[in-house]
Amino acid sequence: MSEPAIRLAILGLGTVASGVVRILNGPNSPVSCRAGRSFEIRHVAVRDTSRPREVEVPVNSLTTDWLAAVSDPEVDVVLELMGGTTIAREAVLAAIATGKHVITANKALLAEHGNEVFAAARKAEVCVAYEAAVAGGIPIIAAVGRSMTGNRIVSIEAILNGTSNFILSEMLGKHRQYEDVLAEAQALGYAEADPAMDVDGTDAAQKLILLTQLALGKKVELKDFPRQGIDTLELADMLYAEELGYRVKLLAVARVVGQQLEMHVEPTLLRRERAIAQTDGALNIVELEGDAVGHLVMAGAGAGQMPTASAVVSDLVDVAIGRAQQTFPQLNLWQDDSGLTVMSADQIQRRYFLRFNVEDRPRVIAEVADILGRNQISLASIIQHEAPEVDASENGGVPIVPLVIMTHRTTEGSIRAAEASLAQLSTVRAPHVRMAVAD
Amino acid sequence: MSEPAIRLAILGLGTVASGVVRILNGPNSPVSCRAGRSFEIRHVAVRDTSRPREVEVPVNSLTTDWLAAVSDPEVDVVLELMGGTTIAREAVLAAIATGKHVITANKALLAEHGNEVFAAARKAEVCVAYEAAVAGGIPIIAAVGRSMTGNRIVSIEAILNGTSNFILSEMLGKHRQYEDVLAEAQALGYAEADPAMDVDGTDAAQKLILLTQLALGKKVELKDFPRQGIDTLELADMLYAEELGYRVKLLAVARVVGQQLEMHVEPTLLRRERAIAQTDGALNIVELEGDAVGHLVMAGAGAGQMPTASAVVSDLVDVAIGRAQQTFPQLNLWQDDSGLTVMSADQIQRRYFLRFNVEDRPRVIAEVADILGRNQISLASIIQHEAPEVDASENGGVPIVPLVIMTHRTTEGSIRAAEASLAQLSTVRAPHVRMAVAD
Repeated sequence: MSEPAIRLAILGLGTVASGVVRILNGPNSPVSCRAGRSFEIRHVAVRDTSRPREVEVPVNSLTTDWLAAVSDPEVDVVLELMGGTTIAREAVLAAIATGKHVITANKALLAEHGNEVFAAARKAEVCVAYEAAVAGGIPIIAAVGRSMTGNRIVSIEAILNGTSNFILSEMLGKHRQYEDVLAEAQALGYAEADPAMDVDGTDAAQKLILLTQLALGKKVELKDFPRQGIDTLELADMLYAEELGYRVKLLAVARVVGQQLEMHVEPTLLRRERAIAQTDGALNIVELEGDAVGHLVMAGAGAGQMPTASAVVSDLVDVAIGRAQQTFPQLNLWQDDSGLTVMSADQIQRRYFLRFNVEDRPRVIAEVADILGRNQISLASIIQHEAPEVDASENGGVPIVPLVIMTHRTTEGSIRAAEASLAQLSTVRAPHVRMAVAD
Repeated sequence: MSEPAIRLAILGLGTVASGVVRILNGPNSPVSCRAGRSFEIRHVAVRDTSRPREVEVPVNSLTTDWLAAVSDPEVDVVLELMGGTTIAREAVLAAIATGKHVITANKALLAEHGNEVFAAARKAEVCVAYEAAVAGGIPIIAAVGRSMTGNRIVSIEAILNGTSNFILSEMLGKHRQYEDVLAEAQALGYAEADPAMDVDGTDAAQKLILLTQLALGKKVELKDFPRQGIDTLELADMLYAEELGYRVKLLAVARVVGQQLEMHVEPTLLRRERAIAQTDGALNIVELEGDAVGHLVMAGAGAGQMPTASAVVSDLVDVAIGRAQQTFPQLNLWQDDSGLTVMSADQIQRRYFLRFNVEDRPRVIAEVADILGRNQISLASIIQHEAPEVDASENGGVPIVPLVIMTHRTTEGSIRAAEASLAQLSTVRAPHVRMAVAD
């Protein structure tokens, strides 16, 4: 090992950064051997240097001065593991401007400011590596950016948010309601104190944006495609889906349809036999389709300290060997030459799961079916169970019952038009439920 | 694209090589763009230049003189896609000796002569890339060699032979016997005219040897670990396994147990819920366990023209960019510093599925259970169905019935000792069936 050590500045010393330090500090760590070089932690920038830490870092490396850390000419690589999109953006740009390679796990930063960051890195002839930003320990960035180079990728279907998937698995497995499971997930540390970005689909959508840019050469903004979280999902609908042979997952989809890019992140019904439907707990899964390789599935821990640290370290070894510097300029991150336009929500074609709360009166099903039919929506199946005994004091003694409908393939535009008409029916109570069904 | 073209010599123009040419020739192929260079096919060495071909290669590139093709100083990269271990070995060594990088899909060559080939390449400062040699289109060599560098890999469990898996899926799905499905698979082109290497486990074992060397730094020979194919498997035992909640797969396993390496390729019972148990048809799947990343699963087409060509082209782009040249010297291919010794078959610990054909007489089950017990084997479950009506002229009117036993965890040594004693019982008919059960 005659090569000089790689000198690191680490921004943040939270869960993932501590995991990285743990791997680098490990007894007989295989990492230096595989990199052909050793690693030296020069700076660790934190908010509070006096806080106790779960890992040991070199004496005097702790600092609150992130700018000095990233600007130090004796640093080779900056690991941005602080999160957020303000200081993280400034720090990454400062690191790039002073000639450092950057490794980041920050999907929000890259989804929002990726173009700026990537362009700056390209200009400065440094690289930005971000394996840890998507699907944690699953090496999906490597698979798409390096291993599928002989393919045109035509479809991505994925579970990219472990917190949401954990909550859905618990709801279904233990017949619990959303709020109940969320509270437990927070208590256990699976969900953030503010879980909004996880459960409203933003986190999964940011990861999908990164995958789509890399796989399809198309940069899409959050506002350009439909996104819905699991935070309004009811257990009842998950159970109706099961009754129909489907499982509900927060599915992220990007698919080439002619010259259009169909893209969405939503609770989606998947046939129970599919691997993606059987991915439970905090796991992530990505199913890719390439024109040469066909379907490729990768599954593993989508978050957590050591899996995410594993991804960061793989990037670090790539930089140490010099591979990342060769890979980065060849990635599809520079221009939109895909020729693709993002499909408008109304044009998206698929099957739908609908649940209306209707009065249990004669002709209600006929009225609903008629409105759907007039919007060219044909029905694949209907579930309406017998009404429970009703308290005559409520709703004038008329029971309200759920009417669950599975449609054949139609457009989201037709569904929306039908929904507008259905809202006019006095026998249908708002709100109703609509979920996409995957092919 | 100012860089000069990469000049290729392709050895063989069979299924995979034609797929590679198809990708390189494709209209608006993304490959050159991703490589930053174009590719030029200089030579295609074949046995018969007059045979009609399914793809177009440059005029005058076809030759029978493989030695001249690989030795041409104007060639940069040799693609060894001819198969076999005699001429392929000579050609690869000649290519390396004259300074060419080599890309190969030949698992037999590398499993048998890998040390010689890798050492020659290291000495000549060229690289040998072999993504296509293991699990077809699944980028498992990249995942192990590049993406898991922050991990100690502790376990590999995989389905690595698509032909065997196709046959098993057909047997179970359609209740057909082995010979019957094999004949169909050959007619359909899924199985070779001589399918011996596929169905006797050799092909899967060769791939496991390559994965183990890369992942664990340990070179193992075929003769060093137990290997059994699917060619003696009976449908009846697959159905008994189903009755017990298990599915039979040809499973390749390499697992670190203390300082020992447990390694085997055998028909194995897996709990039906596991992803690996649900991998059907010609698909391959690899489950890795790393100390940081935890479990990682990759599944996809393990063979076939375009998936395998996709893997070859990913290596070709790696060479064009210069990545493969950096990766190769860092791989765990040089010395055995793993400290691991291969566990002897007798020491392997696990549960077993046993099926004996016994006389349907009083005390037979007690005798069998007694012998197992005396060998410290305890029983987890037993299936013995009611005997069918029997033809009194056979076997003196005593029905022969299958006795299926699932043991608790024990050693293979204990099982073998018990088998020797059981063979002495007049009420137990040879042969019996023994299959491993995965945890």
